[in-house]
Amino acid sequence: MHRGSNQLQLADFNQAVILDVVRRSPGVSRADLQRTSGLSSQTISNITRRLIDDRLILESAPGAGARGRPSIPLAVNRDGAFSVGVHIDPARLTIVLLDLAGEVRLQQQLRTPQATHPPEVTALIADRVAALMSEAGVDRDRVLGLGIAAPGPLDVRAGVVLDPPQLPNWRGVQLRSDLHEATGLPVLLDKDVTAAATAELRSSEGAATDFVFLYLGSGVGASVVVENQVLRGTTNNIGEIGDIIVDPDAEQLVGFGRRGGFAAACVPEALVIQAAGLGLLPLPNLDDYLAIDDACTALCDLASAGNGGAARILRRAAERVAVGLGVLVNLLDVPRVVVGGPLWNRLRDTFLPVLPALVAAELVVARENVTVAGSTVGEQVAAQGAAELVLDHFLAPRPSALMMG
Amino acid sequence: MHRGSNQLQLADFNQAVILDVVRRSPGVSRADLQRTSGLSSQTISNITRRLIDDRLILESAPGAGARGRPSIPLAVNRDGAFSVGVHIDPARLTIVLLDLAGEVRLQQQLRTPQATHPPEVTALIADRVAALMSEAGVDRDRVLGLGIAAPGPLDVRAGVVLDPPQLPNWRGVQLRSDLHEATGLPVLLDKDVTAAATAELRSSEGAATDFVFLYLGSGVGASVVVENQVLRGTTNNIGEIGDIIVDPDAEQLVGFGRRGGFAAACVPEALVIQAAGLGLLPLPNLDDYLAIDDACTALCDLASAGNGGAARILRRAAERVAVGLGVLVNLLDVPRVVVGGPLWNRLRDTFLPVLPALVAAELVVARENVTVAGSTVGEQVAAQGAAELVLDHFLAPRPSALMMG
Repeated sequence: MHRGSNQLQLADFNQAVILDVVRRSPGVSRADLQRTSGLSSQTISNITRRLIDDRLILESAPGAGARGRPSIPLAVNRDGAFSVGVHIDPARLTIVLLDLAGEVRLQQQLRTPQATHPPEVTALIADRVAALMSEAGVDRDRVLGLGIAAPGPLDVRAGVVLDPPQLPNWRGVQLRSDLHEATGLPVLLDKDVTAAATAELRSSEGAATDFVFLYLGSGVGASVVVENQVLRGTTNNIGEIGDIIVDPDAEQLVGFGRRGGFAAACVPEALVIQAAGLGLLPLPNLDDYLAIDDACTALCDLASAGNGGAARILRRAAERVAVGLGVLVNLLDVPRVVVGGPLWNRLRDTFLPVLPALVAAELVVARENVTVAGSTVGEQVAAQGAAELVLDHFLAPRPSALMMG
Repeated sequence: MHRGSNQLQLADFNQAVILDVVRRSPGVSRADLQRTSGLSSQTISNITRRLIDDRLILESAPGAGARGRPSIPLAVNRDGAFSVGVHIDPARLTIVLLDLAGEVRLQQQLRTPQATHPPEVTALIADRVAALMSEAGVDRDRVLGLGIAAPGPLDVRAGVVLDPPQLPNWRGVQLRSDLHEATGLPVLLDKDVTAAATAELRSSEGAATDFVFLYLGSGVGASVVVENQVLRGTTNNIGEIGDIIVDPDAEQLVGFGRRGGFAAACVPEALVIQAAGLGLLPLPNLDDYLAIDDACTALCDLASAGNGGAARILRRAAERVAVGLGVLVNLLDVPRVVVGGPLWNRLRDTFLPVLPALVAAELVVARENVTVAGSTVGEQVAAQGAAELVLDHFLAPRPSALMMG
């Protein structure tokens, strides 16, 4: 794997181990690192010197060590390296700039261009990524790479979008190499749900680290975290739940997936078809995800404003989602469900008051402690996760081979 | 944890590491062990001496080592230790005696007594376990323990059967301590599907080690294996799939679970209700799992003999099971499905010719290489897995704390 324009040299394994510990344990001392890593004090001294010279870590004011020797706390230099994450939802494009400490520096949400030509979207992404780095005053040599979270199915190893039902013009698009070419950055492509679970896990301190993440956006998907590991699936396409039957008595929505399926229960397209059927709003152009997204926003606004029909559609959606979540919790025996994605902000007020009890009613084994909550990361969860996957790729001691550039 | 009547002393961690390597790599030499474990040659020499003295491993005839030095192959002594596994299906009780090499020495299948009094079943198990050890000529001091595979939900840590819908009289039964008392052996309790997946994984050499195991017995359940690890779930109750809707148009079976659910699709009770409804056989007493099991055998025999109505019931069951398997594969992105359990032998001839194509038709992501096959272990898969869990508990370097005795 060549490094493209990237100036940082992080290939040394021991150095990666040390940087990883410092990232996860701010304030750690050289003596701590020696104990943790088993490396010699001379090696620790050399590596920390190199990391300081590379501006990846910083020393702060010394405190008193255990034996009275001064102990110098080390922490990552937040400005030492960055990554960019982009989440392509068919309706919303989210871009995040992450610093080495894992903090979001800048973020932006755009309407995804409904281009029939993927290169237009690629060009827009490249343009916005450059603008974001420039706005943040970030030297592009300090940007490790670009992570893309996209709806599946994907060939993650090849960096190719296969045939996502929601991005009909994207079949076979070499998204990773196209974006590498357009940005000059190393690029990593991963599934939206996997990226979202990665960010959610990082922000899950104190909560159960076994959970199911339910992604609600223009599509629906799930990811599974078991013992701190985000499961990916053998082909990296974990979490295709749209066809799980959640309401055997549901009507067939014209031209829409499996009758009574999880997708038909809660994706914006299905919700607005139902709303239009009740005359609550005009049926939008169903080939235009922006029009669908806007109509869905209007539906949620109607419900908030007290419209009974709109509220009933969303309430029924919550009931059906609960059946689907019951399937996942019964199967996987996880203590926690997290719901997020670009649609979640609009559904939260309707869903959250009822969802925990509805899910509990679905559980075969009495699991009093199963929690159902919204994402603690926010609407940018998948973009942030994609950026975190890039940091992990370059900085974790076990780099994977999914990066282009 | 005290050891009860068990005379074997296996507590030393390094010794456990070495024995584990010898178990998994028959023919390994002391030099190999030194390289694998990182332990000193003196330590290896001491440990192997102790294991030989304890009759847990054996030396065989020396071959030529890499440098011409004689290299003595080590292997476990098959007769050095044993474990017993018992699988309690509501209709069939399976008992297996496993030797230290993981081979089944003896096995037995009985009709599960339909006792309203669990102590009667406990006494029968204790009696049969003693008879099996005696028949095999096995010194009980060489039997490490007894593993019980039972339908969930269980409290595995406490060794208690919670409220299995299929064993209505077993609510809150302290099965582990009862059987410890009745047999004098250390006892481990685990879920039937978890035990089954453990045995299937062990026999999966050469096949994908990510798979879903579908258990078909008096009930239906699943287990999930990811990267060689049998997932257990947070409360050890993974795999409750009976309520997954697999046919929205299914009839409601009187007094039977969720309409159109996975359980209603394929458990013997549901199948014989359908058969009786068509007049193919008299409706058995639905409180008697033996009567249900016999009626189900009769139904499968009718289908084999060319009865069209019986064949249609089983064919429809296969179609519904395929929908449920589609849910599991789409969600988990596994390359392999294994079907087994006490009902499988009777369904295999109907299911296996059609199931792979039916499952493939359910998959959202084209996964050409997803295989659907019957268990390679056989009908005793859960009992064998329970016995393997006992061996692992005592012999693996990371003992868990689930054993009583």
